[in-house]
Amino acid sequence: MSGMPRGRRRERGGGVSDFRTDGYAAIDWAANYLERVGELPVLAQVAPGDIRARLPARAPDDPEPFSAVLRDLDEILLPGVTHWQHPRYFAYFATSASEPGILAELLAATLNSIAILWRTAPAATELEGVVLDWTAELLGLPSGWHGHIEDSASTSTFAACVAAREATGRDLIVCAEHGHSSIEKAARMLGMRLRKVPVDDQFRLRADALGDLSDAAVVVATVGTTATTAVDPVPAIADACAASGTWLHVDAAYAGSAMVCPEYRWAFAGVDRADSLVVNPHKWLLTPMDCSLLWTSRREDFRRAFSVVPEYLRTPDAEDSLSLSEYGPALGRRFRALKLWAVLRCYGRSGLQRHIRSGISLAERFEAWVADADGWELCAPRTFSLVCFRLEGDDERNRRLLERVNASGELFMSHAVLNGRYVLRLAIGQVSTTEADVRRAWDVLVREAARL
Amino acid sequence: MSGMPRGRRRERGGGVSDFRTDGYAAIDWAANYLERVGELPVLAQVAPGDIRARLPARAPDDPEPFSAVLRDLDEILLPGVTHWQHPRYFAYFATSASEPGILAELLAATLNSIAILWRTAPAATELEGVVLDWTAELLGLPSGWHGHIEDSASTSTFAACVAAREATGRDLIVCAEHGHSSIEKAARMLGMRLRKVPVDDQFRLRADALGDLSDAAVVVATVGTTATTAVDPVPAIADACAASGTWLHVDAAYAGSAMVCPEYRWAFAGVDRADSLVVNPHKWLLTPMDCSLLWTSRREDFRRAFSVVPEYLRTPDAEDSLSLSEYGPALGRRFRALKLWAVLRCYGRSGLQRHIRSGISLAERFEAWVADADGWELCAPRTFSLVCFRLEGDDERNRRLLERVNASGELFMSHAVLNGRYVLRLAIGQVSTTEADVRRAWDVLVREAARL
Repeated sequence: MSGMPRGRRRERGGGVSDFRTDGYAAIDWAANYLERVGELPVLAQVAPGDIRARLPARAPDDPEPFSAVLRDLDEILLPGVTHWQHPRYFAYFATSASEPGILAELLAATLNSIAILWRTAPAATELEGVVLDWTAELLGLPSGWHGHIEDSASTSTFAACVAAREATGRDLIVCAEHGHSSIEKAARMLGMRLRKVPVDDQFRLRADALGDLSDAAVVVATVGTTATTAVDPVPAIADACAASGTWLHVDAAYAGSAMVCPEYRWAFAGVDRADSLVVNPHKWLLTPMDCSLLWTSRREDFRRAFSVVPEYLRTPDAEDSLSLSEYGPALGRRFRALKLWAVLRCYGRSGLQRHIRSGISLAERFEAWVADADGWELCAPRTFSLVCFRLEGDDERNRRLLERVNASGELFMSHAVLNGRYVLRLAIGQVSTTEADVRRAWDVLVREAARL
Repeated sequence: MSGMPRGRRRERGGGVSDFRTDGYAAIDWAANYLERVGELPVLAQVAPGDIRARLPARAPDDPEPFSAVLRDLDEILLPGVTHWQHPRYFAYFATSASEPGILAELLAATLNSIAILWRTAPAATELEGVVLDWTAELLGLPSGWHGHIEDSASTSTFAACVAAREATGRDLIVCAEHGHSSIEKAARMLGMRLRKVPVDDQFRLRADALGDLSDAAVVVATVGTTATTAVDPVPAIADACAASGTWLHVDAAYAGSAMVCPEYRWAFAGVDRADSLVVNPHKWLLTPMDCSLLWTSRREDFRRAFSVVPEYLRTPDAEDSLSLSEYGPALGRRFRALKLWAVLRCYGRSGLQRHIRSGISLAERFEAWVADADGWELCAPRTFSLVCFRLEGDDERNRRLLERVNASGELFMSHAVLNGRYVLRLAIGQVSTTEADVRRAWDVLVREAARL
């Protein structure tokens, strides 16, 4: 690095490296990738073990230049990448790591701020609070909630269950049959019991089937389920929780981002009464993985559940400052707030709304094509940007269709099982997805169905 | 982005952005930061709330250019950054996010591969296995262990405790008084009991005081404790665990990286008998936060503890492929392996060894200065790159000294309490730290001690 005193040059043993040169090359690689990703097969066209077989068995003894990493990224790894950034990635929940978010990750890694305590990362700690407040306002949430960032909704929901057990002294978790698998995983990790409540004909938790909650630590309600994006009846669930002193955790990991548009706020009815809430900007709010927002209206209960401050982490400023590690499972925390800050600023409320509306509008169009086509059926109400549908006929036919479509590399979709039937899921959420991409998905589906 | 079809231009609402231009600016910012970080105050010179007060209360309605983010990063956030990348960061465990690791984070965010299943990220999944194997070989670990990456040692140790409880059916965790606070946190989150075993005069777990382990799920032994980098007697602990069917988890989050040098492998004696092991390359192996490696010799026990595969995540390739989310708490997983791969390649075994030896050698020099100085005392054996010492006199004198030293901005250190006495910790691990930096730290300590 020019202008750097010799003693500060960050040598890597084998020779002098220039961070700027390597960095520009990395930016060029990233720019080229984002430009051409739409031309690559969406689903990696490799078999298990293929990528590993192409890599050496041992690390090199001597330093290699960064250009060798970029070369092997292209030649060895890229064929094994399933392209989440592809405009025809329609599986699970489609996501985008947007450009400001990507560059902010570079900056966060450069700073390497580690927020174990406030004083080890005051800016990271306070910006985290600020962007959580900003996002709460954007989504129409109550002001004054305490929020922080976890890596994934699995961790956020797990943390909420820990806090709920601590606050209630109970060990039962209740959720709908369509609740996310992370709830079952949390119950298993924590040794808590799990009760699954049946859903109605629109795959929403049946509040009338909640049963006795007097021994329930927490009910996990979902706004936007994974299988169909159904919205559980949060107001009725909140009533039941209030009556029994049960913690209400709302999983809005996917659909929460849509609340940036006032016309979808109906889906957040009752969420103001939640004890905790998770929304993942790394799903539908243009933020690179990982960024899961966990809010609580019961800050002190979280602190009681998670605060362990050993002597070597006590600092003179501790009483006046906030250490976010006291509110969740991990001690070491990355500067994740930086990428959300960059996204919120570079898109603004209007840009985020445009993104959400675009995805929902494209899903509406796809839904209309399915509805109008002979031999196809819609399988669940389309609430946001996900369409659940199937070919008429048996499950095996749909399973084979999905395999053929995904093997084509032209798009990537996933499936669900609803009422015992195999169903195809087309999820829209990529920032670069256009109507032409959605049209092409439909054309490929029709083409491959005809070839079955 | 030039050459990109118009429909693919990733607009952000307010206007056309050029990823290359923004990206080069971000690289320039990062390069300038790394060049000048040594001239900034190490510990942020702000009071709690200062940074928040400088930020707007709401997100912008309309898009802002990325240049505004870079400007505010400099003007608003940077004064609130405690500089972990500073050559005179000597607190907790000093770490470096090295240049290849930083750039690899940019690439990982660009790809945004999310390894919920093998097929959603074959390259990320298989590279993770490869770099874990590479690192195991570099550290002299047995071949054939299963490894994956978690965000932090807190999560790795938590996961090991879950697996141990599942495998043994027991609910007691045992560790030394000097075990890391994450062990107590795991016990609290899991509702498991915790027994702390006394340490010997060198702050190592006393194997003769382990007591009856017949109801112990796991003993957590530490190779390189946080307070003093003491090495617990793993062979004797392994004997006791073997005799009682207790899981042995080894926390080598900091010191494990030193095993890349054969001359320190004595500290890993007995670790080949562990059931699980955590080493954090984000501590002493030049990898940006977060990168915590968790190995196990009992892969199936981990899978039994963590595998929850709902219908919508079942794929045709599941039987032949490995989904790492089945081996740990989170479902969504970042492409963390990429940065470790870049670091291992760009440093190579020789570069990593040079880094470890340099840190230990500098610590030896500092230790000698303290030993030779009147009015100062060493407080614990120096095993790796940490020196524990104090001014002769009472705790309050040392506490005031630490506050003055940290307030100077010239260096940042932390403390511990050993045998009831307040002790200063100087931890070396920055890639850019030179003897002049360590000398300056000593000069500042002597200067401020004289001013007390």
